[in-house]
Amino acid sequence: MRGLFVTFEGGEGSGKTTQLKLLANRIRASGQEVIESHDPGGTGIGKEIRTLLLDPGPAPISAATELLLYEASRAQLVRELIAPALARGTIVLCDRFTDSTVAYQGCGRGIDRDLIRQLNRFATDGLVPDLTILLDLDPEIGLARCGRDARPDAATGRGTGSAGWDRIEAEPLDFHRRVRDGYLALAREEPDRVAVIDAGLDTIEIEAIVWNRIVRLQSVQRCRFMTS
Amino acid sequence: MRGLFVTFEGGEGSGKTTQLKLLANRIRASGQEVIESHDPGGTGIGKEIRTLLLDPGPAPISAATELLLYEASRAQLVRELIAPALARGTIVLCDRFTDSTVAYQGCGRGIDRDLIRQLNRFATDGLVPDLTILLDLDPEIGLARCGRDARPDAATGRGTGSAGWDRIEAEPLDFHRRVRDGYLALAREEPDRVAVIDAGLDTIEIEAIVWNRIVRLQSVQRCRFMTS
Repeated sequence: MRGLFVTFEGGEGSGKTTQLKLLANRIRASGQEVIESHDPGGTGIGKEIRTLLLDPGPAPISAATELLLYEASRAQLVRELIAPALARGTIVLCDRFTDSTVAYQGCGRGIDRDLIRQLNRFATDGLVPDLTILLDLDPEIGLARCGRDARPDAATGRGTGSAGWDRIEAEPLDFHRRVRDGYLALAREEPDRVAVIDAGLDTIEIEAIVWNRIVRLQSVQRCRFMTS
Repeated sequence: MRGLFVTFEGGEGSGKTTQLKLLANRIRASGQEVIESHDPGGTGIGKEIRTLLLDPGPAPISAATELLLYEASRAQLVRELIAPALARGTIVLCDRFTDSTVAYQGCGRGIDRDLIRQLNRFATDGLVPDLTILLDLDPEIGLARCGRDARPDAATGRGTGSAGWDRIEAEPLDFHRRVRDGYLALAREEPDRVAVIDAGLDTIEIEAIVWNRIVRLQSVQRCRFMTS
């Protein structure tokens, strides 16, 4: 039986990474094999691309270059890690995936969404997550959780001087609002795949909701497998 | 007046790089400003991507990842270097460009050519060379010029153990034949842009043919500029 592919999505400070780790521990405790990954990254080449995206050097990286680098990292991640693991029956959890590109590069940066969808299909070789956990949060709260003040002024929105800010976190509040709206629109388009969870709930409550979704998904998968 | 954009294309050992340098010297000697570039590369980010393409590490790089990295490097090259230089009136010469991707990734690796054309348009923001010099050569001769024996056997075609071979040069002879055919098909599709020159001619003869094309192109451009 093919493994489950579950992605975690959401804005900065939404708690994706924490929830992914909690779920991975719970799956492991239940005796099942699980791989934790993140996009961009997750492979040797992806790690190099991730470093390049976070620290592109003195010249500003263009939005087109950024998009193509994300997709390059994803193409390698799917072929080298995710697809083989799923074929072995392993559960794969991924911190960000194709929906991030639609939300950030499409809705955030305004790149044509049809092109992004086509690039996503090419990069993933058509692989779609079985379940996407979308941790939804007001970006003002999310950015404050990350220890940054949300910056309402787009004109001065780039960076607070803190070296830890990466390029995307440093975008103005309007950008993060468009990202959130983009995510919610995706969830309306694909309600069966994308589960929206209020990221304002307690960590333990969210963990329980996520675990219930996984249990339900696995029982559906088992039924399908037995009747096929 | 906008600068001219001239690209050099051809298989391994076709003498592109030599001819690009000879043309650059001649343009400089005529008192005009010229930039020599190469794709992939040509910018800080492009240089990092080029290094990654040439030495991707222990896991094999997927054809999809390779294509997306080439396009990422190109997107940055156009926006950071080529487009601003052309706007200043500088002549830009580029060692490989979009046609290489059609020939190598499209005809060589068999990736869908419509997708490649769409990616090329996105990466270049629609920029098309004013002139492309295609140095055409039988790949068996070209590879021998590079000091490699052409390997007719596709099954054992990967690498001869020499550390200097890059991934693409190490492809079997059939691959390089498809690349050549792809280039010649492009020249048939766009005869006004792509000038096919027999790379078997003497260096000095090729240099003269190229220089004539540039002089002709510049006089056409000047006429257009004066009558516009």
